[in-house]
Amino acid sequence: MRVGGGPGETEGMNVNFAERAHNHNWKLDPIVRSLLDTDFYKLLMLQFIWKNFPGIHVTSEVTNRTTAVRLADHISAGALIEQMEHVKDLRFRKSELIWLAGNTFYGTRSIFEPAFLVWLEDGFRLSDYEVTERDGQLVLRFSGLWTEVTMWEIYGLALVSEMKTRAALATLSELELDVLYARAKTKLWDKIERLRGVSGLSISEFGTRRRHSFLWQEYVVEAMRGALGRSLAGTSNTFLAYKHDLEAMGTNAHELPMALAALSNTDEELRASQYRVLELWQKSYGGELLILLPDTFGTTQFLENAPDWAADWTGQRCDSKDPFIAGDEYIAWLLKRGRDARRKRLIASDGLDVDDILRLHDYFNGRIRFSAGWGTLVTNDFRGCHPRGEHDFDPISLVCKLMTVEGRPAVKLSDNAHKSTGVPSEVERYRRIFGTKAVEGPAVVV
Amino acid sequence: MRVGGGPGETEGMNVNFAERAHNHNWKLDPIVRSLLDTDFYKLLMLQFIWKNFPGIHVTSEVTNRTTAVRLADHISAGALIEQMEHVKDLRFRKSELIWLAGNTFYGTRSIFEPAFLVWLEDGFRLSDYEVTERDGQLVLRFSGLWTEVTMWEIYGLALVSEMKTRAALATLSELELDVLYARAKTKLWDKIERLRGVSGLSISEFGTRRRHSFLWQEYVVEAMRGALGRSLAGTSNTFLAYKHDLEAMGTNAHELPMALAALSNTDEELRASQYRVLELWQKSYGGELLILLPDTFGTTQFLENAPDWAADWTGQRCDSKDPFIAGDEYIAWLLKRGRDARRKRLIASDGLDVDDILRLHDYFNGRIRFSAGWGTLVTNDFRGCHPRGEHDFDPISLVCKLMTVEGRPAVKLSDNAHKSTGVPSEVERYRRIFGTKAVEGPAVVV
Repeated sequence: MRVGGGPGETEGMNVNFAERAHNHNWKLDPIVRSLLDTDFYKLLMLQFIWKNFPGIHVTSEVTNRTTAVRLADHISAGALIEQMEHVKDLRFRKSELIWLAGNTFYGTRSIFEPAFLVWLEDGFRLSDYEVTERDGQLVLRFSGLWTEVTMWEIYGLALVSEMKTRAALATLSELELDVLYARAKTKLWDKIERLRGVSGLSISEFGTRRRHSFLWQEYVVEAMRGALGRSLAGTSNTFLAYKHDLEAMGTNAHELPMALAALSNTDEELRASQYRVLELWQKSYGGELLILLPDTFGTTQFLENAPDWAADWTGQRCDSKDPFIAGDEYIAWLLKRGRDARRKRLIASDGLDVDDILRLHDYFNGRIRFSAGWGTLVTNDFRGCHPRGEHDFDPISLVCKLMTVEGRPAVKLSDNAHKSTGVPSEVERYRRIFGTKAVEGPAVVV
Repeated sequence: MRVGGGPGETEGMNVNFAERAHNHNWKLDPIVRSLLDTDFYKLLMLQFIWKNFPGIHVTSEVTNRTTAVRLADHISAGALIEQMEHVKDLRFRKSELIWLAGNTFYGTRSIFEPAFLVWLEDGFRLSDYEVTERDGQLVLRFSGLWTEVTMWEIYGLALVSEMKTRAALATLSELELDVLYARAKTKLWDKIERLRGVSGLSISEFGTRRRHSFLWQEYVVEAMRGALGRSLAGTSNTFLAYKHDLEAMGTNAHELPMALAALSNTDEELRASQYRVLELWQKSYGGELLILLPDTFGTTQFLENAPDWAADWTGQRCDSKDPFIAGDEYIAWLLKRGRDARRKRLIASDGLDVDDILRLHDYFNGRIRFSAGWGTLVTNDFRGCHPRGEHDFDPISLVCKLMTVEGRPAVKLSDNAHKSTGVPSEVERYRRIFGTKAVEGPAVVV
């Protein structure tokens, strides 16, 4: 905003007629405008899938776990489809591919193979999809080759999240919009201020999927970069990393062990599949990209039965287990396996906010290299900001789940029973095989 | 701000080259851009002076009572002079004069005489001035005909206030600026929200003289209008009233009784001068413009000795006395004089903030028509908003004092000894004549 100046100023000769006309003529205000506008781990996993599982077919679904918010009442399926068609028409731009080829990720050049980049340019496409309404909710279902389906995850989540935002924004006057954003900025800055100057702190922005909007996420990242300096390790958003010369962060997700588990033919193969993922992953990636994600079928069984070389991996991301407990468990496991925990990394990424980040940093500081993945509660925490005290901008728990792999049901047990997914009979079978109990974790906020 | 949208957007063809070049070429970013950018009471008083005292010479000074803030360290006298020269070159625009002639003020048409409006167009000018540095402060001294000097008050105060703001803004990064304004807006909205829906509330914006900046004042007024509706009675800023179709508020100030007192030749004349002002005023103005300002030489003596017709005036503005006490005193006085206080108006205007406004409204509701004049603490309350916790944006107590009239010293006693002005020997003489004790009021914040 201009802060100086005074009365009597007019646009005068300087009306930009073309811009005004253009702004009035927009048919669509696209939410996702680049295929890089996704979490970096999706690109790493895409290359992994392209290389190892190019012919596998899967289905996945975006749904809303916050059932109290009836999305279909706020978002028109038609408008959502227009946004999805726009994404489907996007191609990787030459400059983006050159950046993927030439940039250093986690200190390593040429993480992406030339053949993969050629395929990204010429062969990549997004799968078909269906949008349906169910119990007041919108369900996005994707089906096709795994390489075509996987990338929908973040685009789909970000589209729904921002369309919910836009629906709520449309109910506000210009003044109310201003109040909303002033309050959100004040809230954001109060959070950032608490993190400023904390020695050795390492935070990555992980909030693409449930962001308030793209522009707000960009604002958040710029704010963090300006105020936190080196404490901001990077962003999971590849486009923002590209645009703002930040580190692109992230490694892999549950969909890999889930898919390999679904493809297993025997109980023995199923138990082994969670380590088979690691074997394949370390053929393509090294260093900081070797981050265990042990909670897909239960962290404790994963660590107990893991081959010794898994302890050579660089670190662990704990997602569904209380990170204090998960971190202690990992450190104890490393000790038992004769490794130096202080050289390992621990990443927490589940619904963190400032208090959690500060407490975890204090707790693990000096024992393991702790990093916080700060997601929804930095890119979409508008709680208490609505000018009329409504809750329209409160974040909701949108998720994208792998449903089937080659027609077989996919399952995630996780360390928190609230987060397990899959048909009940299959969940039961998996629990039996992995020996994992249903642990009642805390209720899911985001 | 644009809140939708996504990556990949560029200005492309739509760069406004002329606007960019123009913005880079500004020699001066004027603070005061219209002679209407002043408190409405200055125009009423200007007509009064033009009519009754066209040949009187006066001097006045703008100074900073907050001596801890060394203004000369922040504001260059040269830059201030550039701004003042810009104001001196301003003329009333035809459209502004037509508005003054044709608009209804306090429900009355033609408050300004045609001859006065002709003189505003052809004869009005601002006096000469000096800017000097004294003990780290900048002092603005004006001398000339009273009609030339009086209008400097608000221009001078607003210039210094906004130049202090600009100096502080220049120390902030773009991100820090954003934090500052987000916090200030949040603070403002939290205040406004507390006033929303309070039945019968009447508030005027009175904060031109010590505003953060013109644009911020405009934002504040628009915010109040949007949220408070009819509870916003108007603004004292004539330009904002003109631009936004609001009521222009205000009546008269201490400079009138001070000048008439200074012109008195005997003790008797001096005592009578405070009522002589009223006699002259009611020749020009009526209705809601008949607002007593009784504290120039002490409220209690003013009321006790006032002629009975003074109780026919519409109301009272209490400025330097605790408004609870001053209001009660006024109501008791009206009762004693046989008038119905419920038909009278009480205006409080001294350093009010939300708490004061709500408490005063509650206290006087049903007993007298209470109005709050909300000034510095709505147009310049940036306390606690600085992104690095500094106090550069905290408001300071800038004042403009009438110093001499026809070479004789001018005096204000006021109800708060901290606010008395004038050379000590004269203050002493006035105290003797008016029988006013030096009352230690609260320390002055703004």
